[in-house]
Amino acid sequence: MKIICKQQQLNEAVLNIQRAVSAKSSVPALEGILLSAEESEITLCGYDLELGMKTKIEAKVEEKGRIVLSARLFGDIVRRLPADDVHLSVDDKNITKIQSGPADFSIAGIPAEEYPELPSITGETSIKIANCTLKSMIRQTIFAVAESDAKPIHTGTLFELDKNKIRLVSVDGYRLALREETAKCEEELNFVVPGKTLQEVMKLLSDDDEELEILIGRRHILFQIGSYCVISRLLEGEFLDYRAAIPNTSAMEILVSTRSFIESVERVSLIITDRLKSPVRCLFEDNEIKVSCSTSIGRASDQLPAKMEGEPVEMGFNNRYLLDALRNTEGDEMKIQLNGALSPMKILPREGNSYLFLVLPVRLKSEA
Amino acid sequence: MKIICKQQQLNEAVLNIQRAVSAKSSVPALEGILLSAEESEITLCGYDLELGMKTKIEAKVEEKGRIVLSARLFGDIVRRLPADDVHLSVDDKNITKIQSGPADFSIAGIPAEEYPELPSITGETSIKIANCTLKSMIRQTIFAVAESDAKPIHTGTLFELDKNKIRLVSVDGYRLALREETAKCEEELNFVVPGKTLQEVMKLLSDDDEELEILIGRRHILFQIGSYCVISRLLEGEFLDYRAAIPNTSAMEILVSTRSFIESVERVSLIITDRLKSPVRCLFEDNEIKVSCSTSIGRASDQLPAKMEGEPVEMGFNNRYLLDALRNTEGDEMKIQLNGALSPMKILPREGNSYLFLVLPVRLKSEA
Repeated sequence: MKIICKQQQLNEAVLNIQRAVSAKSSVPALEGILLSAEESEITLCGYDLELGMKTKIEAKVEEKGRIVLSARLFGDIVRRLPADDVHLSVDDKNITKIQSGPADFSIAGIPAEEYPELPSITGETSIKIANCTLKSMIRQTIFAVAESDAKPIHTGTLFELDKNKIRLVSVDGYRLALREETAKCEEELNFVVPGKTLQEVMKLLSDDDEELEILIGRRHILFQIGSYCVISRLLEGEFLDYRAAIPNTSAMEILVSTRSFIESVERVSLIITDRLKSPVRCLFEDNEIKVSCSTSIGRASDQLPAKMEGEPVEMGFNNRYLLDALRNTEGDEMKIQLNGALSPMKILPREGNSYLFLVLPVRLKSEA
Repeated sequence: MKIICKQQQLNEAVLNIQRAVSAKSSVPALEGILLSAEESEITLCGYDLELGMKTKIEAKVEEKGRIVLSARLFGDIVRRLPADDVHLSVDDKNITKIQSGPADFSIAGIPAEEYPELPSITGETSIKIANCTLKSMIRQTIFAVAESDAKPIHTGTLFELDKNKIRLVSVDGYRLALREETAKCEEELNFVVPGKTLQEVMKLLSDDDEELEILIGRRHILFQIGSYCVISRLLEGEFLDYRAAIPNTSAMEILVSTRSFIESVERVSLIITDRLKSPVRCLFEDNEIKVSCSTSIGRASDQLPAKMEGEPVEMGFNNRYLLDALRNTEGDEMKIQLNGALSPMKILPREGNSYLFLVLPVRLKSEA
């Protein structure tokens, strides 16, 4: 293998592909990036057996070939190469020479035969969606993905496609996040994408409305984002019947400034530590939200105005779960619907229903 | 104790004073900040038994008093207080109430009697120096302070004051850094200030030429920087006779671009890891510096032009020690003087001798 390519393009590609590479693996090749030189381009590939990422960059290919190079070391070297042009050649002992201006490296590569094959997508359906739309949908639902493996299916986000809607739903037993958008889908389809995959997809998505393509196979999904291709397995299992979990009634409806509510909860949370946990107490009454908390460190209280209609209620929340939901809303104000102290808090946009979050309350002991 | 002060002033003071507070101490009061309210100001004080820091801010004092509050918790609270005015009051059980706008905290304080007395400075000499001058002098010498406690005196920087010069010197057995400036000192005086103290002093120093005052006592030193006062013990012991360590002759003199030399050494250092150490090999010959290194990861080489006069020589260096020295030079170019492969590299500014660094070489095995 013998190629010449541009430092800047190579560096950008390596930085992104590195993220799909295992930091530590029992298979040394999986700690590397697979480089494949063909015709007038090279393909870079990272894969950790769950998530694969590929991209192509232009290159002058003097001799085709494939090699696996340590992702960390190759990334460090490429980042610091001094000249525009990078010359890369591999000898028959897999010794790889990297030259750029006066800099000259020779490092041991791993034979490409030791690199596993990426899965291929079969029986696919395809949808198109704007970069910025998918990015905001993932952002507003990923926080509620389960961290624990207790129910593996809930470590992913449910994608529900029907005729003119696309809906993303995450649940972890303590909260639920739902986000929907109109989109043109040919068929109805449900599947669950691992949270880790969506984290990486989100980093590759731009903020503009250029469209990306998603191919959904039986067991795998492929996101084609610009020159990057992300392939991931889908999760299998039965996702929660989330519709049954969403209350339809509302005994109290509140309109409140997002920023003020976040700041008040953040302040009273200061006396909560990992070792000293205590629920944040919220009293919704008389157009005012009184937020308070007490632990053995001390007591904190705060209050903020809000527009209310309905039955006053006092509820307790895990501060982190409440903050996650509040911080992922959109717009200056949000609408909150309550159904008594033991029913989940429902958070909606001021207008419409593009997102819907539920946060389960914590039972409060009566105050001493 | 009962006071009202401004959130912004209090926050800035707490942020700085926090740095002098122990993160973990067997004396709980030492994890706190001592607040003392007198007349129309409050004093904040942090002390870890080696380094103390004090500052004053304006306050409306309704009732004098003293209290110690957890530095971490108090800092977190103050930073997030919502209104301009902060009301702070302490009851006879040391319960401290902090109020600001709608926010209201009550936390347990520690009696001020449990807080140790800061040392006082006796038999003092005083000098004045510009903020920016001292800052650059500390920056250019602190990197060579010994990290190990093998010779405790070398964990500090030597200050040498004579009639019209002030000189700072750090050594750690592998390198030496010396920096001097003209300054008006009344008497000749030598003392050694702990590196940790200088780190904190450097953070408080501004980049302007306003003067600060240094008071030197028999066992302690005090830096008065604006409204901040830093008190530290001095180190005792015999500092290296550094003059004897500096070579007077020069068999090879080199003029080189600082940036190019740093980048070349950084690049070849990429194949050095904590587990795979190897010296960086520098060959000074024919107006070119050839830099190379080889470890079991691979081989790296680089080269850069330089103006040379004298005997060509090949030397080995610990990459970190070499880089520390190169990065702390000033100006676009530097002068290097060499005296053979086993004599230290001497680094000087292109003109003059405001700084002087020595880096000891590593013996090279002949290349395989």
